[in-house]
Amino acid sequence: MKKSSSSAFLGQDLGLDIAQSFFKPIQRTEPPSPTKRHTKISVVGTGNVGMAIAQTILTQGLADELALVDAKADKLQGEMLDLQHAAAFLPRTKIIASVEYDVTARSDLCIVTAGARQIPGESRLNLLQRNLALFSHIIPQLVHYSPHSILMIVSNPVDVLTYVAWKLSGFPSNRVIGSGTNLDSSRFRFLIADHLDVNAQDVQAYIVGEHGDSSVALWSSISVGGVPILSFLQMQQIAYEKETLEKIHRAVTESAYEVIRLKGYTSWAIGYSVASLARALLRDQRSIHPVSVLAKGFHGIEGGEVFLSLPAQLGRGGVLGVANVHLTDEEAQRLRHSAKTILEVQSQLGI
Amino acid sequence: MKKSSSSAFLGQDLGLDIAQSFFKPIQRTEPPSPTKRHTKISVVGTGNVGMAIAQTILTQGLADELALVDAKADKLQGEMLDLQHAAAFLPRTKIIASVEYDVTARSDLCIVTAGARQIPGESRLNLLQRNLALFSHIIPQLVHYSPHSILMIVSNPVDVLTYVAWKLSGFPSNRVIGSGTNLDSSRFRFLIADHLDVNAQDVQAYIVGEHGDSSVALWSSISVGGVPILSFLQMQQIAYEKETLEKIHRAVTESAYEVIRLKGYTSWAIGYSVASLARALLRDQRSIHPVSVLAKGFHGIEGGEVFLSLPAQLGRGGVLGVANVHLTDEEAQRLRHSAKTILEVQSQLGI
Amino acid sequence: MKKSSSSAFLGQDLGLDIAQSFFKPIQRTEPPSPTKRHTKISVVGTGNVGMAIAQTILTQGLADELALVDAKADKLQGEMLDLQHAAAFLPRTKIIASVEYDVTARSDLCIVTAGARQIPGESRLNLLQRNLALFSHIIPQLVHYSPHSILMIVSNPVDVLTYVAWKLSGFPSNRVIGSGTNLDSSRFRFLIADHLDVNAQDVQAYIVGEHGDSSVALWSSISVGGVPILSFLQMQQIAYEKETLEKIHRAVTESAYEVIRLKGYTSWAIGYSVASLARALLRDQRSIHPVSVLAKGFHGIEGGEVFLSLPAQLGRGGVLGVANVHLTDEEAQRLRHSAKTILEVQSQLGI
Amino acid sequence: MKKSSSSAFLGQDLGLDIAQSFFKPIQRTEPPSPTKRHTKISVVGTGNVGMAIAQTILTQGLADELALVDAKADKLQGEMLDLQHAAAFLPRTKIIASVEYDVTARSDLCIVTAGARQIPGESRLNLLQRNLALFSHIIPQLVHYSPHSILMIVSNPVDVLTYVAWKLSGFPSNRVIGSGTNLDSSRFRFLIADHLDVNAQDVQAYIVGEHGDSSVALWSSISVGGVPILSFLQMQQIAYEKETLEKIHRAVTESAYEVIRLKGYTSWAIGYSVASLARALLRDQRSIHPVSVLAKGFHGIEGGEVFLSLPAQLGRGGVLGVANVHLTDEEAQRLRHSAKTILEVQSQLGI
Repeated sequence: MKKSSSSAFLGQDLGLDIAQSFFKPIQRTEPPSPTKRHTKISVVGTGNVGMAIAQTILTQGLADELALVDAKADKLQGEMLDLQHAAAFLPRTKIIASVEYDVTARSDLCIVTAGARQIPGESRLNLLQRNLALFSHIIPQLVHYSPHSILMIVSNPVDVLTYVAWKLSGFPSNRVIGSGTNLDSSRFRFLIADHLDVNAQDVQAYIVGEHGDSSVALWSSISVGGVPILSFLQMQQIAYEKETLEKIHRAVTESAYEVIRLKGYTSWAIGYSVASLARALLRDQRSIHPVSVLAKGFHGIEGGEVFLSLPAQLGRGGVLGVANVHLTDEEAQRLRHSAKTILEVQSQLGI
Repeated sequence: MKKSSSSAFLGQDLGLDIAQSFFKPIQRTEPPSPTKRHTKISVVGTGNVGMAIAQTILTQGLADELALVDAKADKLQGEMLDLQHAAAFLPRTKIIASVEYDVTARSDLCIVTAGARQIPGESRLNLLQRNLALFSHIIPQLVHYSPHSILMIVSNPVDVLTYVAWKLSGFPSNRVIGSGTNLDSSRFRFLIADHLDVNAQDVQAYIVGEHGDSSVALWSSISVGGVPILSFLQMQQIAYEKETLEKIHRAVTESAYEVIRLKGYTSWAIGYSVASLARALLRDQRSIHPVSVLAKGFHGIEGGEVFLSLPAQLGRGGVLGVANVHLTDEEAQRLRHSAKTILEVQSQLGI
Repeated sequence: MKKSSSSAFLGQDLGLDIAQSFFKPIQRTEPPSPTKRHTKISVVGTGNVGMAIAQTILTQGLADELALVDAKADKLQGEMLDLQHAAAFLPRTKIIASVEYDVTARSDLCIVTAGARQIPGESRLNLLQRNLALFSHIIPQLVHYSPHSILMIVSNPVDVLTYVAWKLSGFPSNRVIGSGTNLDSSRFRFLIADHLDVNAQDVQAYIVGEHGDSSVALWSSISVGGVPILSFLQMQQIAYEKETLEKIHRAVTESAYEVIRLKGYTSWAIGYSVASLARALLRDQRSIHPVSVLAKGFHGIEGGEVFLSLPAQLGRGGVLGVANVHLTDEEAQRLRHSAKTILEVQSQLGI
Repeated sequence: MKKSSSSAFLGQDLGLDIAQSFFKPIQRTEPPSPTKRHTKISVVGTGNVGMAIAQTILTQGLADELALVDAKADKLQGEMLDLQHAAAFLPRTKIIASVEYDVTARSDLCIVTAGARQIPGESRLNLLQRNLALFSHIIPQLVHYSPHSILMIVSNPVDVLTYVAWKLSGFPSNRVIGSGTNLDSSRFRFLIADHLDVNAQDVQAYIVGEHGDSSVALWSSISVGGVPILSFLQMQQIAYEKETLEKIHRAVTESAYEVIRLKGYTSWAIGYSVASLARALLRDQRSIHPVSVLAKGFHGIEGGEVFLSLPAQLGRGGVLGVANVHLTDEEAQRLRHSAKTILEVQSQLGI
């Protein structure tokens, strides 16, 4: 399926290999050396999320080769062709697709967006077990074909599934990352920026912890153009209630549901979010992003291996470190509570 | 709807306008002058095509303001929020949306992707009449709010609907453009480049005429890296049959149907195609693209006003000129035949 | 001089206007409307600084038209041709140059890098007076040809000369900006980022006040990845001396002298610095940058009109506001001292 | 010299390693694998040409690491610092510099701009021998530290020096490339585009052969927007003289001298030219560029190993092939003449 049928058709009909007569090699090209290589990203799952990620990676020129994998052969080939048809408008990226994982061989980054959907009436645990089965199929094959790659998990529940991917992969923890609260933090920054009519890139603000309703907004981390907001409000003697801040945080967590209610799914923002992580990793940006990492040992999280989002420095080696941000006792307490809940779920999965 | 409800909510809850205390104006900013403005693009229709266009425009930073219009309020707001949530990952673009056209005011470019869908059993003419009704609603409002804008029509059948938009707008013909065979040409270039394993940007090749099955491939225009392919084949004494070339062309026209059959619709490639046209227009690139323009007077097309794709030079003023490409007698004949067919359809529409 | 002589030569020799036969207009293009325009930047002064700015603006595609002005006709045309020769490698930007200011007509942004050089033994005041004479020649012409433009002053001493340009232009203060400490702040951010091995874009840090030796480092504004550094050091019980911080600041101010001592001048960093300001202004980024703005009324600066660098929000309208950052009493005191010194110099200039 | 002295100073003064307390590693990062690497470019020679190349590569984000080498330690460190100071305005690129070649270790691409300058009265051969001595110093060290890299020679006379580099390196010929007539071709395309008021990227035109006065313009290769110009002129019955075309070609070769006469050297255009080649190579663009390659066996060039510019396909492996463009007998004859002249020079060099 890697070559479109129409393309094969073209060569066949001309009854010759124009390519060989058009170019003359100047001498036999030596075999590729280990250091003479390009950047390859694989995306597993070509639903709305996977395709928004793939298309944004393509537009931003982050990869020299892009491989798509999905179980649905037709949908998959349709998406591949639709991206390929834009070749004349973009820097050249080789785009390939297959239901088989060999297409992902020698990836630098494997992004997993595949996940089972909840069946009406299905328990959360049952859904997780189906996702575990799915990951047991996906992860070992990715690892087999790209043993040196970084794994980025986007499927939900992202924290547990990142743990699952880590266990199944046998990779060191710095090479297994969940997209986590990177998008939640972006929504947080947008809401603040939109209200202040500033550029969202001038707003620093983290949401950390478990992706979803139990995430933790780090109020003390919010600054606008380098001005810490809480201190600013205090200095200006502007009163605010703790409850108020919580309402803002709730607006963030609710905005994901709002998009799903309105358009049926989320796609663009998660696409940009994951593409920004891909850039940080593959271009060795050493920049800091709130993503799901092995959180054991941070902020008093002990007693088990759990992935939670913390501000992590990302580069070509994956997670380079976790920023030593200050949490209030209550924030740390909530983080530990999330960790405990996730650990209980993980223990039920039996891996 | 222009502001997300969660954003309004944020301000309300803080019970104050942080923005005003955070920034101090250095003096009253003078009223905006006619020359002190930014670039605005409006996209009408937020289906798969409209959103692929909008998202690509956003990723490529082509506009300072992006307005979305659709009749479906929920879908529309969902798409707007999903794009807005990515603000922290992108250069700042103001993104607004409304079911009302005032949101498009002072656009530089209005892109229309809205169109009625064929009802099973519906005649082609009936469908066209419903689209005429739709355009009679859309175009005058776009013209009212953006009298100096360029209109780009993407809805199908694109050639007739570009003519309809031109008549309804009262705009000079250089400011009404159909996306036409720009994408067909890209598919053509991809198929050739993929076979030769070269960069599609090194392949020059035009498909002109009516968008769809009756389009005309300009064989003499094909060159790879500056080498005209037909002369090359002749010089290398490589025989080829005219029938063979037609098969290649057919592969191009079929590839659109193939994508639709496989994934249900086309989106990414048309998104990139239209974004590349938007860039040529708004950044005054004066570059040449096969798009649907008023073709009267070219290649012997007389007897009526008809839009067909020809290689046109695009810049900030819209269509700057049409390249005087050489057509064989047969190619010109086919173009005139398409023109005649389209004119007959137009006469039935009664505008 | 706007057209290279070799280009004119080309047309003359072919003895015909290929352009007119190659393109056929589809109809007479209407006269340009006030809203149908492109983005134009003018750079006055084509020395190392001016050309680094011009070339970075070109590479980053920030303008559709770039005009260069310099008194040295040969150097000027050489630089224009050298940039033009790269046309095939870049998005199309019209590049023009002249010793006359009409070439700058209808600019959106005018960047002034021209300045008199100190003659050995010349007093600071005498140099300033020569620069005042130079600006009296430049500024009124820029204002005449581009009455709606934004003026960006890069020439040194930047704060006084920005004041001079403001007085000479008659522009509202939001449209007259000095590059100020934007580059000093970047150097500050680099030194911190380099030491911590993080991305400089993750480091927030401002140097404000007078550009040069009396600039003020805002220690409380430094954060890395959203973590305020001073609080971090306190929480980690890491002792530091105030004197130590001053040494770091001194390293920043010395680094400009160091580059000049080593390579003879500075160019690349100021080029990137000013290009980033041009982007913020022309693409309406509403982002915050430490630049020289009318500082009267801020931090207790009263008693006269003086330009100093403060974190300002920049957008299409110029300076949109000044961020209300907290200064310690000592920092504010130093700012007021700089203001006083500059005011004294200005009073001697007699404008 | 790799770390700026001020940076080292910063760490020393704080008397601690903030970096280690700021980030906590999540676990010991595994040693770098051969596949977990970034893109590195080295530039040898930091004169006007070398720095224009380095700065354009940096602005366009083509490398994750950039190494500069020059014999002049002060100039070198000044240029490094000047680029580093812009870190906050750019995606992160590690910039290092040294007079020693170990700084270039594991480069993907080594660009050589260093070259001896002609001493007044010096013979061309004597100059070449001095350059041979210089290359005998440079090339083996580049090869030692980056045995898998691609060598790009920019120093003049580029064709002979590319041959010299090839012989000294022991590299296969697909990994040794001279910038050749890539810039001449760009100037040719600009002159045509400027005259026709089209985008230079729509103009296809090659100058091939020896870089400089004996280069060969391929008239039959010129097309504008896919329309071959010579056929167009014939079809339009527009007469032109062969002499006229030669005058246009002469305008191209003279334009380099014109820039040097006017500004003293060329820099920007060669910077963009080489950066575009670096992109084609390192991002595996498989695109076609006229560059200096081993020309033996092409167009009847036999009898010795000589480098001349021909349209070559460039990708991650270096030169992937040479396009089989048609040359007239006279064009091929001129190419062979150039080859013969160069071979004679090479025989005198004794390598």
